[in-house]
Amino acid sequence: MTVATNTTMEPKTLNLSKPRVLNVAIVGFGTVGSSVARILSENCPAGLRLTHICNRNIERKRVDWLPGTIRWTDEISDVLSSDVDIVVELIGGLEPAGGWVRKALRAGKSVVTANKQLIARHGTELVRLARENHQHLAFGASVAGGVPVISGLQEGLAADELVRLCGILNGTCNYILTRIESAGISFEAALREAQQLGFAEADPSEDIEGHDARAKLTILARAGLRVSADPLDIHARSIAPIEPVDFEYAKLLNCTIRQISRAEKTSGKLFASVQPTLVHESSPLAAVEGGQNLVMSTGKFGGETIFAGHGAGGNPTAVAVVSDLIAIVRSRQINGVALDESTTSALPVSADFTSRHYLRFTVKDEPGIIAALALIFCRSGINIDSVFQKSGYPKSKLPFVITLEPCSNSLVEESLRHIAELNFHVQPCLSLPILD
Amino acid sequence: MTVATNTTMEPKTLNLSKPRVLNVAIVGFGTVGSSVARILSENCPAGLRLTHICNRNIERKRVDWLPGTIRWTDEISDVLSSDVDIVVELIGGLEPAGGWVRKALRAGKSVVTANKQLIARHGTELVRLARENHQHLAFGASVAGGVPVISGLQEGLAADELVRLCGILNGTCNYILTRIESAGISFEAALREAQQLGFAEADPSEDIEGHDARAKLTILARAGLRVSADPLDIHARSIAPIEPVDFEYAKLLNCTIRQISRAEKTSGKLFASVQPTLVHESSPLAAVEGGQNLVMSTGKFGGETIFAGHGAGGNPTAVAVVSDLIAIVRSRQINGVALDESTTSALPVSADFTSRHYLRFTVKDEPGIIAALALIFCRSGINIDSVFQKSGYPKSKLPFVITLEPCSNSLVEESLRHIAELNFHVQPCLSLPILD
Repeated sequence: MTVATNTTMEPKTLNLSKPRVLNVAIVGFGTVGSSVARILSENCPAGLRLTHICNRNIERKRVDWLPGTIRWTDEISDVLSSDVDIVVELIGGLEPAGGWVRKALRAGKSVVTANKQLIARHGTELVRLARENHQHLAFGASVAGGVPVISGLQEGLAADELVRLCGILNGTCNYILTRIESAGISFEAALREAQQLGFAEADPSEDIEGHDARAKLTILARAGLRVSADPLDIHARSIAPIEPVDFEYAKLLNCTIRQISRAEKTSGKLFASVQPTLVHESSPLAAVEGGQNLVMSTGKFGGETIFAGHGAGGNPTAVAVVSDLIAIVRSRQINGVALDESTTSALPVSADFTSRHYLRFTVKDEPGIIAALALIFCRSGINIDSVFQKSGYPKSKLPFVITLEPCSNSLVEESLRHIAELNFHVQPCLSLPILD
Repeated sequence: MTVATNTTMEPKTLNLSKPRVLNVAIVGFGTVGSSVARILSENCPAGLRLTHICNRNIERKRVDWLPGTIRWTDEISDVLSSDVDIVVELIGGLEPAGGWVRKALRAGKSVVTANKQLIARHGTELVRLARENHQHLAFGASVAGGVPVISGLQEGLAADELVRLCGILNGTCNYILTRIESAGISFEAALREAQQLGFAEADPSEDIEGHDARAKLTILARAGLRVSADPLDIHARSIAPIEPVDFEYAKLLNCTIRQISRAEKTSGKLFASVQPTLVHESSPLAAVEGGQNLVMSTGKFGGETIFAGHGAGGNPTAVAVVSDLIAIVRSRQINGVALDESTTSALPVSADFTSRHYLRFTVKDEPGIIAALALIFCRSGINIDSVFQKSGYPKSKLPFVITLEPCSNSLVEESLRHIAELNFHVQPCLSLPILD
């Protein structure tokens, strides 16, 4: 018999009987911060103690349901110079959050963050900095709120070789699209409704244009596909051009329309995009309602795996934050592996997926339109799959739909540039991929 | 500025630049074992090396695609006396697997297992033994094959207080039920079909009676709800009485029928059962196809989270096994926490859920049947919700359905005992809960 003596196993030198409690500071006391404080006060996991809360105009933020021992402060320097072990960064945005995270790591504090923009843009650098300072940097809350997809990809599916990720990562867009579909209202009306209900910001462009989802997709691609990419290199398209008529046509194809974020790793290239996309009614993606998020991963060995749940909200996001805190207590660097430069590769990014396409034209009707379009597609070697025309629209502004057999997006775009020069258009053509 | 010095953080004493490679033995070289070997040979994660394969009649099992350095043996003692660090137990069943796992732990080897019966029955004892011997015991593959639900519950949702688990955990039952539904064939015919396709064993009772799902539910309840239960205390009902007519009636209720495993923690009691159940068409449970598995967890803070994917099969299960191996390399005791006696509680188990009920009677038609039933339910204070009778059946063997408003299962069972004494029955009444 042998006795395992390797040092990567549970080290015998740890004082397991009495681990030191780790002091936690919450920086940014909004909805999520408040939920994190509530979990840490009502249900505090062993080994953690909330000691500091930092926010601008802190007096405005003080609550009576937290112990009197907590230090409330306006000044990040109070946190940085304290005996806090872990800083929970919940202020969002690149600055000052980025500077504070760097200072915290250099001051020998671990960091848990829900800041998707910061991790998407500077994750590799920040993880390196954390390693250099022997600290943890965890960001499970930065994607899909309470859905444990980062740990799922990095730990539960660690042994698989993931090749594709596909998901619904932005609840605002999902709410708006489902409202256009169910109520038959315009994009503008659905957006106003979402703003009134607090589901969309006063300036909604970050969500609508796909920039929020793009940052999340960047983080998922690193965690799951082990590819590092700049979010600004990922093609993002607005959901604003989607009209109720598109859902009517999609239904004829047994599809619905969702904002789909997807990334696919091939030899030497990362295909990635965020855009409104047709998905089949039977797909789990079609069933995602309101603010729910869903991520499907496809692995070489394990096939398809789905993670779904609440993508936003104070409590679900706080669960992700506190789960990261617990992981640090359990002494795990849960997110370091995928961001380690040695295990991620930087690949050129392309949005040129091959797929079927949905093209909705809005024209002033006249003879020969289909013939003219067919000729242009034919010259590019693109096959038309079907032509749909619903009745009940005026000839002066007639929508109709052409679907194309699978071909590359770039080929379609090239044809559409020629088609745009024809003179029967009342609106620009709307082109959407169909996810099969 | 302070420097974190707590010992639960990354210990500075580890030789991180050159960790020792861990030797792995596969014990049981069937479908899963062969897939594990393939991943370890084609795609071997850093820090692991396959050194031994142990199986009865080993010569019959030898393959040419593994390196010649691997030691093939019939004898578990060869593995136990070797320098193997981790034993992967894939033989299944309580014995000899249980004895071998105990010997491996005592010999200073960690164990990774996919053995649901062993973990469901003896998990608490085995985890204690692993701790006493400073070894890891990981069993992520014991539930839902490649779906990373154990790590999801224990790590990704560590901060939440989970109150309910509900899922489809047995692919054989799910295949049979979906075939009765789609092809309108009898249970017996669907079972034969599943056996011919290799989806069901020659003796299918373990699956059909719910014993397989019950073992998995026990493990999930420990990991997610932190309740230890004996699987034999969990009420399991066969899917054998389900007939095509039940799917027709279920459809009138906008439902379908699935084998549902569910557990709910209340103060002082664990409600748990495995049984055929009506689920609404819009539920993610209704969309689970063939051999897929799905687990929904409900947390006090994070709400509902879904994990879904391939529940069985060599490759998905092997992904779970090798992910556990990687977790050990990463020096994590990933499954120990929930099974630690100090964090799980033993609760009495009840199957007495309160829910709506579906009752299908098969009678020789005569006047006064509904009146007789209504009187009995009325005496127990149970309200009838609706009565359905599809046309086209002979009066001598007439199926009809009553649905009841929410009430406890025990109350329904008591009424059904009185009802069984009435003399118009051609078959026993089929009673199923309706999951709302």
